[in-house]
Amino acid sequence: SGREPSPAAATRAVGLRAAFRSVRAHTGALAGPLSAEDQVIQSMPDASPTKWHRAHTTWFFEQFLLEPHVPGYRRFDERLAYLYNSYYVAAGPRHARPKRGLITRPDGATVAAYRAHVDAAVDALLADETALPPGIAGIVEIGLNHEQQHQELILTDILHAFSENPIAPAYDPEWRWRAAARAPGTLSIPEGIHTIGHQGDGFSYDNEGPAHRALVGPVAIARGLVTNGDWLAFMRDGGYANAALWLSDGFAAVQQEGWRAPGYWREQDGRWEVMTLGGLQPVDPAAPVCHVSYYEADAFARWAGRHLPAESEWEVGVRSGELADAFGVVWQWTRSAYAPYPGYRAADGALGEYNGKFMVNQMVLRGSSLATPPGHARTTYRNFFPPSARWQFTGVRLASFPS
Amino acid sequence: SGREPSPAAATRAVGLRAAFRSVRAHTGALAGPLSAEDQVIQSMPDASPTKWHRAHTTWFFEQFLLEPHVPGYRRFDERLAYLYNSYYVAAGPRHARPKRGLITRPDGATVAAYRAHVDAAVDALLADETALPPGIAGIVEIGLNHEQQHQELILTDILHAFSENPIAPAYDPEWRWRAAARAPGTLSIPEGIHTIGHQGDGFSYDNEGPAHRALVGPVAIARGLVTNGDWLAFMRDGGYANAALWLSDGFAAVQQEGWRAPGYWREQDGRWEVMTLGGLQPVDPAAPVCHVSYYEADAFARWAGRHLPAESEWEVGVRSGELADAFGVVWQWTRSAYAPYPGYRAADGALGEYNGKFMVNQMVLRGSSLATPPGHARTTYRNFFPPSARWQFTGVRLASFPS
Amino acid sequence: SGREPSPAAATRAVGLRAAFRSVRAHTGALAGPLSAEDQVIQSMPDASPTKWHRAHTTWFFEQFLLEPHVPGYRRFDERLAYLYNSYYVAAGPRHARPKRGLITRPDGATVAAYRAHVDAAVDALLADETALPPGIAGIVEIGLNHEQQHQELILTDILHAFSENPIAPAYDPEWRWRAAARAPGTLSIPEGIHTIGHQGDGFSYDNEGPAHRALVGPVAIARGLVTNGDWLAFMRDGGYANAALWLSDGFAAVQQEGWRAPGYWREQDGRWEVMTLGGLQPVDPAAPVCHVSYYEADAFARWAGRHLPAESEWEVGVRSGELADAFGVVWQWTRSAYAPYPGYRAADGALGEYNGKFMVNQMVLRGSSLATPPGHARTTYRNFFPPSARWQFTGVRLASFPS
Amino acid sequence: SGREPSPAAATRAVGLRAAFRSVRAHTGALAGPLSAEDQVIQSMPDASPTKWHRAHTTWFFEQFLLEPHVPGYRRFDERLAYLYNSYYVAAGPRHARPKRGLITRPDGATVAAYRAHVDAAVDALLADETALPPGIAGIVEIGLNHEQQHQELILTDILHAFSENPIAPAYDPEWRWRAAARAPGTLSIPEGIHTIGHQGDGFSYDNEGPAHRALVGPVAIARGLVTNGDWLAFMRDGGYANAALWLSDGFAAVQQEGWRAPGYWREQDGRWEVMTLGGLQPVDPAAPVCHVSYYEADAFARWAGRHLPAESEWEVGVRSGELADAFGVVWQWTRSAYAPYPGYRAADGALGEYNGKFMVNQMVLRGSSLATPPGHARTTYRNFFPPSARWQFTGVRLASFPS
Ligand SMILES: [Fe+3]
Ligand SMILES: [Fe+3]
Ligand SMILES: [Fe+3]
Ligand SMILES: [Fe+3]
Repeated sequence: SGREPSPAAATRAVGLRAAFRSVRAHTGALAGPLSAEDQVIQSMPDASPTKWHRAHTTWFFEQFLLEPHVPGYRRFDERLAYLYNSYYVAAGPRHARPKRGLITRPDGATVAAYRAHVDAAVDALLADETALPPGIAGIVEIGLNHEQQHQELILTDILHAFSENPIAPAYDPEWRWRAAARAPGTLSIPEGIHTIGHQGDGFSYDNEGPAHRALVGPVAIARGLVTNGDWLAFMRDGGYANAALWLSDGFAAVQQEGWRAPGYWREQDGRWEVMTLGGLQPVDPAAPVCHVSYYEADAFARWAGRHLPAESEWEVGVRSGELADAFGVVWQWTRSAYAPYPGYRAADGALGEYNGKFMVNQMVLRGSSLATPPGHARTTYRNFFPPSARWQFTGVRLASFPS
Repeated sequence: SGREPSPAAATRAVGLRAAFRSVRAHTGALAGPLSAEDQVIQSMPDASPTKWHRAHTTWFFEQFLLEPHVPGYRRFDERLAYLYNSYYVAAGPRHARPKRGLITRPDGATVAAYRAHVDAAVDALLADETALPPGIAGIVEIGLNHEQQHQELILTDILHAFSENPIAPAYDPEWRWRAAARAPGTLSIPEGIHTIGHQGDGFSYDNEGPAHRALVGPVAIARGLVTNGDWLAFMRDGGYANAALWLSDGFAAVQQEGWRAPGYWREQDGRWEVMTLGGLQPVDPAAPVCHVSYYEADAFARWAGRHLPAESEWEVGVRSGELADAFGVVWQWTRSAYAPYPGYRAADGALGEYNGKFMVNQMVLRGSSLATPPGHARTTYRNFFPPSARWQFTGVRLASFPS
Repeated sequence: SGREPSPAAATRAVGLRAAFRSVRAHTGALAGPLSAEDQVIQSMPDASPTKWHRAHTTWFFEQFLLEPHVPGYRRFDERLAYLYNSYYVAAGPRHARPKRGLITRPDGATVAAYRAHVDAAVDALLADETALPPGIAGIVEIGLNHEQQHQELILTDILHAFSENPIAPAYDPEWRWRAAARAPGTLSIPEGIHTIGHQGDGFSYDNEGPAHRALVGPVAIARGLVTNGDWLAFMRDGGYANAALWLSDGFAAVQQEGWRAPGYWREQDGRWEVMTLGGLQPVDPAAPVCHVSYYEADAFARWAGRHLPAESEWEVGVRSGELADAFGVVWQWTRSAYAPYPGYRAADGALGEYNGKFMVNQMVLRGSSLATPPGHARTTYRNFFPPSARWQFTGVRLASFPS
Repeated sequence: SGREPSPAAATRAVGLRAAFRSVRAHTGALAGPLSAEDQVIQSMPDASPTKWHRAHTTWFFEQFLLEPHVPGYRRFDERLAYLYNSYYVAAGPRHARPKRGLITRPDGATVAAYRAHVDAAVDALLADETALPPGIAGIVEIGLNHEQQHQELILTDILHAFSENPIAPAYDPEWRWRAAARAPGTLSIPEGIHTIGHQGDGFSYDNEGPAHRALVGPVAIARGLVTNGDWLAFMRDGGYANAALWLSDGFAAVQQEGWRAPGYWREQDGRWEVMTLGGLQPVDPAAPVCHVSYYEADAFARWAGRHLPAESEWEVGVRSGELADAFGVVWQWTRSAYAPYPGYRAADGALGEYNGKFMVNQMVLRGSSLATPPGHARTTYRNFFPPSARWQFTGVRLASFPS
């Protein structure tokens, strides 16, 4: 999966209504293995209940597509706008984020009915795609991409929830980590001016633009990902105890949180196990390391005498087609803080809050993960999380500079 | 309900097995109106999920009755001892209290099976009550009383959970507050030596003894409870804003928590409503005030030029039979800190942790509430909560001293 | 020092002006060994800077004596009323308590001038004691007792501050703990009705009344104090690790604070040292244990198969004259929560805030300590602190009940 | 002060010993107006006492210069290494940062003696500069630059401390804000490759290198600074209440901290005053805005339809000599997160901890402020603080992009 999987294909090729049906159905499939009980809880403020994801992605279409653009549309239930708005200040008051796990009613069946109500209305709207008013297709498209983001979160959040349960339930008992691609060596990128960011008419988020010229390189980027085996060597070498390897905030996190291995790892009788979507499993040295924070990625790189790539370096490297596991395995931390591209300006209105207001105190991740839904990844895609986050499927690709 | 409702009757008269069946069935009935989703969440660290209450009360019988006293008993699932031990250090490690709301599995049906498994074993054990080994009846009795306590908590905790839901679900849409008994005036108790605490062979908790002699009175105790109407007068008089009426810690709580009315009250367009087991309802001035903290009860008493009764005064007063609404309406805060009676010593072993280790930083409440199950109340019963607690069914009866 | 040291003598016998001069001079003497730097800092929210104590006790006379009762009195500096009001809501807004250590200006010399300014005005007022308007003597007397309380706090607070300094400064290098009195055995008090609380015309705080009749006994009270040697035995027996000995809140404090010995104890190379007013010194097994919290006192009593006395038991015991070290060594925790005596009502106005508003969440201590100034102790004196407090000079006297 | 004030001149031209004497004397002069009391306190965890700054800068020379490089050097007092190490893990254990304000002893006079002791030893070492062992000059130079950084902090920290004092003391009653330079319009920088970072043999911190090529522009940078008058317009326009202008974390800070104006501003009777080194003064609309956080700078830029410059843009702009008030007025927030330049690697050993380990969660500021000591500023200088910091002398210069 070194090359980008032709992201917008799913949407564009099959037509908007088919794409809508497909993405919406995928959400249902993801929730399938989960009971109503599983779907109601929130295991930490940064995670959300599955039921909330199901309802919130539905509210998104109701709020931004149906309500303003379909005359006569009747909301399923006025109260849900309050419950299922996430953070759009311009869209009105919201239920407090840390209290999402207290909403047992409306129950799961009602949320299913809510989804069906909105699906029917959108389906009707999209019946004749040739007659769509201007702007509608764009809103549908962002709604689908939005839902795909929440599809990944459904998996990361339920994994966190299950990891808090002493009996370690499995989301899918058959689920297993695969080995990382064998891809030794590095790709050398000489100094050059490249255009970074999204161009062309395919879908992208606003934070992927404006496309702009940037000087990239010289730099060498590892063709493969860091593995659990690499990480075990770091641990055996006392990596988590050696302050000299860490950013100051990073080592403070190590001490406060008691980190001594990646997230979800547990030592049992001298062997390491890891909580996965398949339940507790032995750590596989050949698999890519996952659930490491930026702090850990940075410390590992320093221990290895390497660096993390900048996001522009990663983007240029991926375009060459010579990096393995760029997509579909683990998100890859970059050393780039999440910031606006030169000249970026968020759109007006509630949808302008989608990305821009989070451009501080976070680090960029590139690529995609095993939890990213099909068709959602993109070479210019910018994911972002605080440097302490570990519950996402986050891993490491190294880089180095010629000396 | 001024007189004690003959507490042990339910247990003693009908026989142990019938009592067991009856109490266990009542728990099921209480959970009846609640969905699996309702039963899984925990709305604050001091509250517990309904499913947890159902499982924990079952664990209590397994841990203290079946496991040690029934040869060959096989635990339903070893892992549940860890999940459903509440605070008995001597009974082994426990799941962290604030994380009780993260246990979606075992699911509600499994907990029902757990209850059935234990019920069958206890039923078999109690088949011939005349042949019970010594001590068994006592353990069953404390197990039933323990379950009754959790029956009240099922109601207080689900009310709290529902109060956190913006759509304000009703546990029982028919539920309504009743007016307080009309009982003007006070009961005068002259100075005298009384025996305080439990005597006789009926069941009681260890904290109700040793019975001991105490000097009580002179004091006058109100025959009736403080009502919502009384409280509205306190509010109109600026009670929540007048620091001179409050204990220092109490006023700090007022300011930090933003209290300006009893718990669960909400002002809507200038009218007060209150969240109840029947959902949001208008505040009824004739109903007893409820969901007030000790701090509020104390401030109200000062505003009224009165005091709260000591628990010994309350006990002597109730014995006279002249106090209305002593039982079955709201617990009544006393001015007595929760402390051991002279010579009290907790029993050895895990059951010794039942009461004694909580005897600090809490205030005694007497009587019982509308949520207390039938047959559980007792004149010598000592309930206790921190002075800031408001989610229990807690109200106020006043007292005064001759000057 | 088993008998009460005739408390009011200092004030009454020598005349009000002489008493005023004497108490005020004693504050100056206590601050004598401390530099301006020592006097400015606040080492925790519950402690106060020496300079603050010096200024606040002066403000007390200005606020409650001079301003209302001396026509034409001019305040030294209006801004000091804001800075040096402690908690009297009725006396106006106050500087935030946790920020007392940020006031480098006014400097120490200015506070000395403030003291001189107020001293002169009070001295003039008291020149002819026979001509004092009614009420004045009472205000002076409470002002002097108030200042004596702060004299003890000057010592407890500077000890805490110095204990936070890695070089462990000594307040008085000559200071040493003395051995506890050798007083084996117990005093038996049979059941009887006693009058508890302050009677007569000597000075007392409002919380010592109303005097009231109470049933006390049967109980036996240890004639001597618990010593460091006793405490070392408790420690060797695993006292701090045995949850069964502790109140639940107490064991939580042990774990959260990492307590494994009394306050200010430090283990150096296997030997115990203790931070004192004389600096770091070896722990003397014969000295009374000090700087233990109520939680620790309670756990120790349980370990010893004993109890703590109630405050009424302590008072009756002391009146018998047969308890050693009742005064002048360490305050003695009682098992009594700090509560109003029956019929207690705080006075109106700011001085009514002196005691009453703290009557919750605290435990009563009786006696006095080595840091209590001469003439301040009283048999009916009620000191009070939260059960977790350790920075006061707090120790333990045991009691037991006939079985 | 648009051009860089020839930073290393002070050190290089006059010779190392003269530079050493000059910088050390300047620290003494800065502390001159402050009493021992002023110098001992710490008003928040991020600030430090003046006495601490005086001792810590001295410890730096003792630790890194005298101890390793002067045979026979005897430390002034072994205990001070523990007290006055700031954050150098490799240099041994340290006193906890938030407790720096509890060290009343050693007193101010002892710290003066410490300074004299170290000054004498360094002076002797530098007596013959031509005979210095290799490496010594570099350590002295970093020690002097280090001390200059703390000179600025002496001022920022005492201003914070005084701002917490209700009587608002003045560090220097004559101190006044000056008007910002009148410099309308912008400097346009076309796209081009520039070398960013420090080159040549003058002193610089490691974070200013490696010098590297970067593509900068097209961008336009304001020639002048944002003023208080500009900021008052932002405030009048509801800037602090309009969530749409803010980063999400920024608006959370606004709400949590209650920000409604820059740091140290206070509204008195409808007029704005600001706490300064000269005490409370009216806000001057012509003066540059100061004590704004990155969050505020970013929101202001968005309100103005502009951006903040990147640090590379700022550096190129300043090199042109056409930006006013680049140095000596207020540090200027850039939109660049603090990150290593490509290929940056911190040195081994304790001095390697100087800068590199802080390269996350902070934003870069460029230029210098009125509190920066003479000779310390540099075009390539990278200052950095968390985006919420307001107690430094931080202001705003705007930029914009051609559309
Ligand atoms: Fe969303
Ligand atoms: Fe229980
Ligand atoms: Fe006071
Ligand atoms: Fe430093």
